[in-house]
Amino acid sequence: MSARVNEILGWYAHENPGVRANIARLLNHGKLGGTGKLVILPVDQGFEHGPARSFAPNPPAYDPEYHAQLALESGCNAYAAPLGFIEAVAGKYAAEIPLILKINNHEVLHDEKDPMPALTATPRDALRLGCVAIGYTIYPGSAHFRAMYEQLRQVTEEAKAYGLAVVVWSYPRGSTLSKEGETAVDVVAYASHIAAQMGANLIKVKPPTAHIELAEAKKVYEKHAIPIATLTERVRHVVQSTFNGKRIVIFSGGPAKDDEQVFDELRAIRDGGGFGSIIGRNSFQRPKDKALEFLATVMDIYSGKIK
Amino acid sequence: MSARVNEILGWYAHENPGVRANIARLLNHGKLGGTGKLVILPVDQGFEHGPARSFAPNPPAYDPEYHAQLALESGCNAYAAPLGFIEAVAGKYAAEIPLILKINNHEVLHDEKDPMPALTATPRDALRLGCVAIGYTIYPGSAHFRAMYEQLRQVTEEAKAYGLAVVVWSYPRGSTLSKEGETAVDVVAYASHIAAQMGANLIKVKPPTAHIELAEAKKVYEKHAIPIATLTERVRHVVQSTFNGKRIVIFSGGPAKDDEQVFDELRAIRDGGGFGSIIGRNSFQRPKDKALEFLATVMDIYSGKIK
Amino acid sequence: MSARVNEILGWYAHENPGVRANIARLLNHGKLGGTGKLVILPVDQGFEHGPARSFAPNPPAYDPEYHAQLALESGCNAYAAPLGFIEAVAGKYAAEIPLILKINNHEVLHDEKDPMPALTATPRDALRLGCVAIGYTIYPGSAHFRAMYEQLRQVTEEAKAYGLAVVVWSYPRGSTLSKEGETAVDVVAYASHIAAQMGANLIKVKPPTAHIELAEAKKVYEKHAIPIATLTERVRHVVQSTFNGKRIVIFSGGPAKDDEQVFDELRAIRDGGGFGSIIGRNSFQRPKDKALEFLATVMDIYSGKIK
Amino acid sequence: MSARVNEILGWYAHENPGVRANIARLLNHGKLGGTGKLVILPVDQGFEHGPARSFAPNPPAYDPEYHAQLALESGCNAYAAPLGFIEAVAGKYAAEIPLILKINNHEVLHDEKDPMPALTATPRDALRLGCVAIGYTIYPGSAHFRAMYEQLRQVTEEAKAYGLAVVVWSYPRGSTLSKEGETAVDVVAYASHIAAQMGANLIKVKPPTAHIELAEAKKVYEKHAIPIATLTERVRHVVQSTFNGKRIVIFSGGPAKDDEQVFDELRAIRDGGGFGSIIGRNSFQRPKDKALEFLATVMDIYSGKIK
Amino acid sequence: MSARVNEILGWYAHENPGVRANIARLLNHGKLGGTGKLVILPVDQGFEHGPARSFAPNPPAYDPEYHAQLALESGCNAYAAPLGFIEAVAGKYAAEIPLILKINNHEVLHDEKDPMPALTATPRDALRLGCVAIGYTIYPGSAHFRAMYEQLRQVTEEAKAYGLAVVVWSYPRGSTLSKEGETAVDVVAYASHIAAQMGANLIKVKPPTAHIELAEAKKVYEKHAIPIATLTERVRHVVQSTFNGKRIVIFSGGPAKDDEQVFDELRAIRDGGGFGSIIGRNSFQRPKDKALEFLATVMDIYSGKIK
Repeated sequence: MSARVNEILGWYAHENPGVRANIARLLNHGKLGGTGKLVILPVDQGFEHGPARSFAPNPPAYDPEYHAQLALESGCNAYAAPLGFIEAVAGKYAAEIPLILKINNHEVLHDEKDPMPALTATPRDALRLGCVAIGYTIYPGSAHFRAMYEQLRQVTEEAKAYGLAVVVWSYPRGSTLSKEGETAVDVVAYASHIAAQMGANLIKVKPPTAHIELAEAKKVYEKHAIPIATLTERVRHVVQSTFNGKRIVIFSGGPAKDDEQVFDELRAIRDGGGFGSIIGRNSFQRPKDKALEFLATVMDIYSGKIK
Repeated sequence: MSARVNEILGWYAHENPGVRANIARLLNHGKLGGTGKLVILPVDQGFEHGPARSFAPNPPAYDPEYHAQLALESGCNAYAAPLGFIEAVAGKYAAEIPLILKINNHEVLHDEKDPMPALTATPRDALRLGCVAIGYTIYPGSAHFRAMYEQLRQVTEEAKAYGLAVVVWSYPRGSTLSKEGETAVDVVAYASHIAAQMGANLIKVKPPTAHIELAEAKKVYEKHAIPIATLTERVRHVVQSTFNGKRIVIFSGGPAKDDEQVFDELRAIRDGGGFGSIIGRNSFQRPKDKALEFLATVMDIYSGKIK
Repeated sequence: MSARVNEILGWYAHENPGVRANIARLLNHGKLGGTGKLVILPVDQGFEHGPARSFAPNPPAYDPEYHAQLALESGCNAYAAPLGFIEAVAGKYAAEIPLILKINNHEVLHDEKDPMPALTATPRDALRLGCVAIGYTIYPGSAHFRAMYEQLRQVTEEAKAYGLAVVVWSYPRGSTLSKEGETAVDVVAYASHIAAQMGANLIKVKPPTAHIELAEAKKVYEKHAIPIATLTERVRHVVQSTFNGKRIVIFSGGPAKDDEQVFDELRAIRDGGGFGSIIGRNSFQRPKDKALEFLATVMDIYSGKIK
Repeated sequence: MSARVNEILGWYAHENPGVRANIARLLNHGKLGGTGKLVILPVDQGFEHGPARSFAPNPPAYDPEYHAQLALESGCNAYAAPLGFIEAVAGKYAAEIPLILKINNHEVLHDEKDPMPALTATPRDALRLGCVAIGYTIYPGSAHFRAMYEQLRQVTEEAKAYGLAVVVWSYPRGSTLSKEGETAVDVVAYASHIAAQMGANLIKVKPPTAHIELAEAKKVYEKHAIPIATLTERVRHVVQSTFNGKRIVIFSGGPAKDDEQVFDELRAIRDGGGFGSIIGRNSFQRPKDKALEFLATVMDIYSGKIK
Repeated sequence: MSARVNEILGWYAHENPGVRANIARLLNHGKLGGTGKLVILPVDQGFEHGPARSFAPNPPAYDPEYHAQLALESGCNAYAAPLGFIEAVAGKYAAEIPLILKINNHEVLHDEKDPMPALTATPRDALRLGCVAIGYTIYPGSAHFRAMYEQLRQVTEEAKAYGLAVVVWSYPRGSTLSKEGETAVDVVAYASHIAAQMGANLIKVKPPTAHIELAEAKKVYEKHAIPIATLTERVRHVVQSTFNGKRIVIFSGGPAKDDEQVFDELRAIRDGGGFGSIIGRNSFQRPKDKALEFLATVMDIYSGKIK
């Protein structure tokens, strides 16, 4: 176990050996194993956006096995997906790469301003499928916040009793937040803090913008001149807001975009003390050889090989 | 076991032997047994539309036994119906033909824009009645999506623990979908993908039209020029969208119509890689001798005897 | 056991011996015992309409014992009432006459367009009180249909596990039905079919009128010229719609009215193949001697003594 | 056991020995012990109206012990209160006077037209605190009637299984009732009947006025010339409406008022066959010596010492 | 055990030895140990208001360990926080200082007029983390009052069965209360009384203003000339309203303000018979040395060293 992984595990001393071993598996697998940084491949877009929007750009990706294989070959720390996709590959891949079962999912067929995902799998499913963790999305700011937080608490309790780690996707959304507010720095920091307070082991948030959403918060950011001008600063603020850096916070990649933009964003995350990235569409929506090349660069940025 | 059935069962390696045996029973029964194609007789229209609309065109069909006998004589792979109809015949037919218990049902006495069926039976009922599978309807796009998906997850877990297969009717409906959108190709493919992600063994959808409902999806279909001009192409797209063809997707027949239209539709489903049909009203709303003749043709199309 | 009772029990071959014995008890008790016809005395009007509206016309009826005694003396097949009334008499009457515990009830103090009764007793109560069956009301057409059907399914499963028969009051009501539609022939036939699909052993509906409520159904009734001009024809249609006559369907008496009107209605029910009547207010809202006389005529009509 | 108490217990022959013993304890305690009449001291006004409105008129009443002591000294049959107040005194008083745990409560901080109390204690609490009964409030006429009735059914079943008696406060309220209708004679009689149908052992209602609320009921009261001109007649009607007098019906005292008015009301209740009173504010909102004097007169009216 | 602590424990004679021992631990720890007064450090503002608003004024406070250490060093009676913060410190501090797990939490990302917190931890969590009590917030006046009270009842029953004490934050809020009404003296006294009726061991309310919110209450305050002009009088009234002083009522500190204002408020609480304070923002939003100084003064006021 590297010193850095040991240090990180020290923040999770309250967890049972099973949970800590699974956090260690996530930190120790793949090209970034042992560095304390993570790159995870998530493929829930088929459920969240529909199959054509997700896989038509690279049709081999319609196949569930494609993704597990990509995550393995590219040296990702883990592969995360909904039940059907995990069931399709767990028999072959659970011993090869850490699997994260995304146990709740949302779809875009029903439009709603205060969203809440449906629970589509359970910690028991994660257990029988050989996963190391469950993944769960909350939408802080939604009118359904109580139902989500209470469901998260329940699945967290059950998952940890099984020795599974808990990864929380914390995405602010809801009728009293503006669109811009969903990625506002105050809101993202707040959402990350909430996830940590609820017992998340790993927290996934979106890269924050310099916008500040909440009037009461704005006063404080200004009064105390909290530095949020650059993404690096904002990442640093989010990490500090999450138990002073003592929880693993990783950042989503968002929609496919220009590679150099992505790489710059990753540098900022790295330099701000972020622990890594979950990168889906930017990985699997290009041909596999290109994806491997892209992910290699991503990991080199996180390991510091590339400045 | 035919090579094709073995191949199909290979996609369900994550299921327990009980579930796999029951999928095999569905695939191996009747005239199409062993071909990997299925024709299933469903009779839930009495509940869904009312008895007169369903059975007045062919009054012997008011009798529950009529349908089990028709399914058996015609060589269907299975017979699917709600609790009352299955209870009325299971004692005599459960050993003769695979039975599928449709455990949720909707009715038209209460009009609602965001529908959700009522759970009218349980996996335990399916078990005591000697069924091989449960059937469950979801309406992706309904405001009740969470409740349906979570109920589906629960009954799926219970049914599979009993060794029962799970057949999901995935019919998009809801207040934010247009009427045309319910059979739009993007929406049908999406609904089929969702059912697969939730662990369905067999998925039943409606034959998709060339309409595209969702604006974000439209861009992708156009950018990547996904072929959807013919029903054959659209069926192929739906099958691909469902784990790259590695789940059994069958298609509903819809309201009674001209036989030649039906046969053309079946050819398109077959040629697009569809796994078969669920044909209710076109079968039981005509005299029995005509129904046997009709179903013989249907099966000959699927077996390839008729081009 | 009479041949007719044996024939009827044959339709319930899927039920356990306990349930079948209790159906037989209902069919074999009283003056109509063995004929396959039933007359049941129901007294839930105190709950449903209030005590004065129910009992002021014949004040001895305020007393719970009055009704059990009336049902016994008149030779009814059974007595049905809510928990309080049954608890008050079960100790003395459970061995004398089949008791049906009406386990859900509605009241008129709160006006609602989409009604749902409250569950006021349980199958366990029926068991400890020596009842042969539970009674449960559904309102097909109500926005609460899911909750009612699912609750019905649960109590049905529990009741049958105890060997109790299940009697379903199926009364269409709801915001999308017209007042006239509640007794429309298409709607009553539909409501009876739904109850049968949900596993009801006996089904109670209102005598249908010639009105047709649902546009889609109207087309079918006209196209196939389903005979619905007379009450006899309409009863025949409802019975056919209920598993082709293989479930016991009985008819309510409605508000007190002229005796000859009642008797004509009963003749029509009998001649249309109806299995009997539930007659409350027309029985207990007159002096006891008159009630015994009235019920004697009712039973003579069903036995055929009176044409 | 007095003949009258034995007679009353005869109406509860369906209850288990535990419940009957606790009903007997209520009937046999205090100055009215054995007469078949009851005076109960209830103190839930702190929760229902707030502490100052309840106790400021007589500040010693802020202390929980004050009330148990008052009930004991005055010779009340029982003392009824919410969890906190009962917990504060049960250790000392449970062996001295029958305690009734009021297990649901409402407050006036949130105004609502269709009220439902919160369940603030359970039958298990009543058991561990040595109580003889639970108390439960229903608001017939509220849109929440289903939830209240079903919760009442559950706690009743549990309480009786523990041998606890069940006292139901039946207070009509709701958006489709007028303010005047809440104490209308038809509505109070109806509410009392419903409580009896649900298995209540003792029923508490408000003294009814001569107003008739429901149009359908009005016709019946007029047609049958039901006597409701005097409170005595109205009490008689309510008692008759409650299983022909075979359930214990007691009447609330309402807000503090002139003593002579109270005494006249009590005479009317007594003469109409009412079983007693629950008198809170008129008792504890005056100095203790005055309260003892007042309650002595109340009991003398019920015992008949005072005409 | 000091005489005063013994006296206080006497009010909790109905609790089991486990609960009483934990109440004693709260009363006996820290500088005020044995005086019957308490000062508790609560840090749930990260969840309730967001991390920057809470911790930016004193950045070391971003770290969970900071607060436990501050509470310990300053000699507070206890430290209260949500799950994540308690998990982060319990291993090191549970044996050093009484911990209170705040098991429900609210956030400001979703604005709502009738608030209800989410249950974010359970009594089991408190148990495994070595806490002496759970903390639970109710908002009397919210339309969700039933759900909160019933959840409070459930967690209270469970917590006490484990021997944990129960601390209730009782903060009136809701659509039918004015903003001013949330701290009105009648409303605060009412909220404190309700918490006591529900079985709270310690109750935390806000310092009440002289405003009276409820019209019916206003009449009583005026008629009986209840003294509420000074904070001391109002605190005395709240304490009296809470079982005549026989429950521990403590007061929140509110937003950071001028120290002298705080100290005056504390004197008033002390002189009115209040049992102490929960002081969060005024403590941790200043440098640690200043905080220790500030808290020393606070405790000296409560101990009476400072008049």
